[in-house]
Amino acid sequence: MEGVIRKINPNVNVTYITPNAKNFNIVAGAYLLYTAYKYFPKYTIFLTVIDPGVGTSRKPIIIKTKNYYFVGPDNGILYPSASEDGILKIVSITNRKLYLSKQISNTFHGRDIFSIAAAFLSTGVRIEIFGEEVKEEELVKLLFNYTKETVSKDKIKACGKVIYIDHFGNVTTSIRINNLKVGEEGKIFISNKEFKAKIVRTFGEGSGEEVLIYRNGYFFIEVGINKGDASNILKVKEGDDICVEVYIQEDFNHSI
Amino acid sequence: MEGVIRKINPNVNVTYITPNAKNFNIVAGAYLLYTAYKYFPKYTIFLTVIDPGVGTSRKPIIIKTKNYYFVGPDNGILYPSASEDGILKIVSITNRKLYLSKQISNTFHGRDIFSIAAAFLSTGVRIEIFGEEVKEEELVKLLFNYTKETVSKDKIKACGKVIYIDHFGNVTTSIRINNLKVGEEGKIFISNKEFKAKIVRTFGEGSGEEVLIYRNGYFFIEVGINKGDASNILKVKEGDDICVEVYIQEDFNHSI
Amino acid sequence: MEGVIRKINPNVNVTYITPNAKNFNIVAGAYLLYTAYKYFPKYTIFLTVIDPGVGTSRKPIIIKTKNYYFVGPDNGILYPSASEDGILKIVSITNRKLYLSKQISNTFHGRDIFSIAAAFLSTGVRIEIFGEEVKEEELVKLLFNYTKETVSKDKIKACGKVIYIDHFGNVTTSIRINNLKVGEEGKIFISNKEFKAKIVRTFGEGSGEEVLIYRNGYFFIEVGINKGDASNILKVKEGDDICVEVYIQEDFNHSI
Repeated sequence: MEGVIRKINPNVNVTYITPNAKNFNIVAGAYLLYTAYKYFPKYTIFLTVIDPGVGTSRKPIIIKTKNYYFVGPDNGILYPSASEDGILKIVSITNRKLYLSKQISNTFHGRDIFSIAAAFLSTGVRIEIFGEEVKEEELVKLLFNYTKETVSKDKIKACGKVIYIDHFGNVTTSIRINNLKVGEEGKIFISNKEFKAKIVRTFGEGSGEEVLIYRNGYFFIEVGINKGDASNILKVKEGDDICVEVYIQEDFNHSI
Repeated sequence: MEGVIRKINPNVNVTYITPNAKNFNIVAGAYLLYTAYKYFPKYTIFLTVIDPGVGTSRKPIIIKTKNYYFVGPDNGILYPSASEDGILKIVSITNRKLYLSKQISNTFHGRDIFSIAAAFLSTGVRIEIFGEEVKEEELVKLLFNYTKETVSKDKIKACGKVIYIDHFGNVTTSIRINNLKVGEEGKIFISNKEFKAKIVRTFGEGSGEEVLIYRNGYFFIEVGINKGDASNILKVKEGDDICVEVYIQEDFNHSI
Repeated sequence: MEGVIRKINPNVNVTYITPNAKNFNIVAGAYLLYTAYKYFPKYTIFLTVIDPGVGTSRKPIIIKTKNYYFVGPDNGILYPSASEDGILKIVSITNRKLYLSKQISNTFHGRDIFSIAAAFLSTGVRIEIFGEEVKEEELVKLLFNYTKETVSKDKIKACGKVIYIDHFGNVTTSIRINNLKVGEEGKIFISNKEFKAKIVRTFGEGSGEEVLIYRNGYFFIEVGINKGDASNILKVKEGDDICVEVYIQEDFNHSI
């Protein structure tokens, strides 16, 4: 893919943001893109190819947002990032003159369609040239949903999904809580099991095999063990349901 | 290695094409290089260091081809790519003035010989400066061989080797067939076992644990399972013999 | 992290030297940095984030040395490299105006403190701007120590630690011996077990499951098996004690 890009635009900066994306997992890929995109310079082009539906009817798309371009399959992976940044225009990449060759492969659209589109975008080709407009309503939606309920004055229960497990075994959830009360003991619920967990600022505050709840570096609620593998202890995998019961600071007034 | 290169030519573009190459496996490395090299800009210098024979008598070489330069050990890894592109000249890197230092390591020629050669090539040093010419006949040859026999009017059996297993567990063979008849049922033969397999355009057309045969993104015949690990189901590893029996379209007239 | 860097300095060269660093292992990270830093161009900025103590009291620091800048946590990881190159000045990164935002995360200082510091350094910001000076005596020290004793006229025993196990399973020790007598049989001692091992120039000189002792590409004593996994055979892991008994060349006069 980088060869294809450099043949069209030899001096473009190419870098990689999702080396840890697991096989086939669109939600984890969407999360990794979402955590990273906002830190890149204006007009960065994000090319994403977790694409289990390659060669089937899913659309190859380009989304122009307020600050960026997103190129990839219409399977939801681009949606959390693009919708947060503000979608301006979407096109389906149907102009075969902008495919790598007349005869493209059925399994590697990353090379044959997406890379070449990203490369042409980087040289200034306008998004309209690539194909017809797609309405936002037609996109495959994917969002990091969760629910929250009040248990008592300073305690809430929140339920969501495991959206990512990193190479340490830390378990990222779709839950967001900005006002955790650090130092208290919370609970984690996974299927019919319940775990006690210490609410901390950072995993370095845990000792031994203590299960920890904290707000991770991307401001999602995460479960980890200091120098240990939480996913293994909790027997949890990406896509599973997860709930946490935590103490909160009532008068917390804060926006990120 | 990239440090050595940037010290000589700070502004050269450096990128990586074979992060998935398995330990010690020259055939898999040769395949990964072969699938990628042709997509890179003219005059790209390919530096390859899957080199189990480092420090022994195998030659360090530079091959100049019609469009590219290839630098690496003479163990076959460069051969499929260089011979396809058209070999113009080969030299053995024997000029010790172009080694990293007087005293080089016995185990890391990637840094001490190959990186520095690639870096000097990128600054315009002519290939003749690096050492004596080597004739093509003297090179270690490596090719992706396979045999094909007609079973019936619209059915063939082809036999080759497993040349690469990717991180999904997809099994790439050395076999090439351009006119697969999609939708039919084929067979796979591995040692004394036989597997039924559906002939498809892309792995996304498979369901459940269905074994699939398709032409992969590099136009080699591959065996996979949609969102599954075919190498595990077939109990096959890189280097193993493999045969497929497939239906073909008779009147297919096609060149890639 | 690369997004943060490129937003500040879009045209800086960014590359990665420690993709093989294991989780949490500061010693292995220090070793990988130490093996690589000296090959990079003058004024390269090394940014290192193996940082199990992130969010706790460990200091974020910048070390200016004779030829380079080192940015990372004060947990020892920078020390072997910085002290070898020659430390000129150290500061603690306390100027919050040079943090990513007013509200930083507790778990990702790589992005919120270190990347932004490295990026500003690359644009020419002076080290004094980032915070107060730290004396070298105050740094967390980490060194690759070992002991050596003479067994007989041409035989020595050296003891150190396993500092790194690479993805082949080769076992790197903290021991350095420049005058190994190649071809002789040595010994390896791990806890209460003893292994015979052949002293070789390079792993390619070993056959079968023969355990090998050689000076690795970074001039540390390493134990390996040709095309095999030595760490598995020796049942050894990073941090373990290890001794070798080897023959040496007496009149060896050599400097690297």
